[in-house]
Amino acid sequence: MKAAVLFSGGKDSALASILLEPFFEVELVTLDYGHHNTTKTAEKTAEILGFPHRTVLFEREILEEALQMLLSTGYPRDALNYVHRCAVETLAQENEFVADGTKREDRVPMIGQNEVRSLEDRLGAHYIRPLAGYGSKTINLLASNYMEFEMLPSEDYPASDFEVGLRQALEERCGPETVAEIFPTNHMHSRVIRRKGFEHKNQR
Amino acid sequence: MKAAVLFSGGKDSALASILLEPFFEVELVTLDYGHHNTTKTAEKTAEILGFPHRTVLFEREILEEALQMLLSTGYPRDALNYVHRCAVETLAQENEFVADGTKREDRVPMIGQNEVRSLEDRLGAHYIRPLAGYGSKTINLLASNYMEFEMLPSEDYPASDFEVGLRQALEERCGPETVAEIFPTNHMHSRVIRRKGFEHKNQR
Repeated sequence: MKAAVLFSGGKDSALASILLEPFFEVELVTLDYGHHNTTKTAEKTAEILGFPHRTVLFEREILEEALQMLLSTGYPRDALNYVHRCAVETLAQENEFVADGTKREDRVPMIGQNEVRSLEDRLGAHYIRPLAGYGSKTINLLASNYMEFEMLPSEDYPASDFEVGLRQALEERCGPETVAEIFPTNHMHSRVIRRKGFEHKNQR
Repeated sequence: MKAAVLFSGGKDSALASILLEPFFEVELVTLDYGHHNTTKTAEKTAEILGFPHRTVLFEREILEEALQMLLSTGYPRDALNYVHRCAVETLAQENEFVADGTKREDRVPMIGQNEVRSLEDRLGAHYIRPLAGYGSKTINLLASNYMEFEMLPSEDYPASDFEVGLRQALEERCGPETVAEIFPTNHMHSRVIRRKGFEHKNQR
């Protein structure tokens, strides 16, 4: 059974993939708005982790819609939720099993319970959140067991994730002041540098 | 790292254990109200699954409190939540990693987000719900890949779970009519009969 995992290059989506690895053929998939080469980080990290990787382009209107949401609401929540939902939908159209790295404590992005069921029923897909039952403390500990990663400020565009991509597109369109108004400052993203202990416990 | 998994003998707690197996030393733990030999099923199933198993006795007052809740509220929800929370607390007092088989769709038992964080901080423990990010459809599919199980009516006391134990104690105290008034009829529990494919995917 193949599972397509939404992948940013950060430690959460990497750990989600590692947790699925003994049970699924994992394929990492990064969605891209279509410019900026934002998927380079994800590609490199996928290679480090040892998983196959693929980039899928969002339809053009999705970035437009997300930028409009950012500008009209003045905060990132709705736009991030929208883009994440589009990404899961896109993958669920061509994969039976779709997963992501959203966590127990995440409020954004978050697909509501009813929406998840509708998506699964409509597309005949299974949506899996391997980290949904793990708190941040546990995730950090497991991530450190299996990976080396570094923390980098969002402003440096360190990951291939939706927030980083939206910041980049918004800056291009409206300048860095608008980005600073809408997105939180001092926000950090993780980037995986190395995988440790390729072997699972009971393979040893 | 050892994880203590709350175990009833049913497919959900069994699948939760299988998902943790590559990453933790799994020990199955069944909590018992102290009479009725309700843990026999769990013991047998643990052996079938190939995990070590242990029974822990609830403190006497917990059953009393739960029975009072059943009788005063007239439905099982609060009592089941109470007993489950006591079980997680009991395990978290002596284990760093505690897990259970609660699922994405479960409303009962369910420990609220704030309570979970308080429990983790207070006891220095990690509470893990391996199935929290999986829907019932996905769980049934994975469970069928890894186990053979049968579905049996609650009235037959088929599992070592909290509901079955409470039904049994309530019947003894107040008779089968009271059980029928408080608990739903036609409620089914699963019981694992056989484990399939002991090997994980990437061990093959």
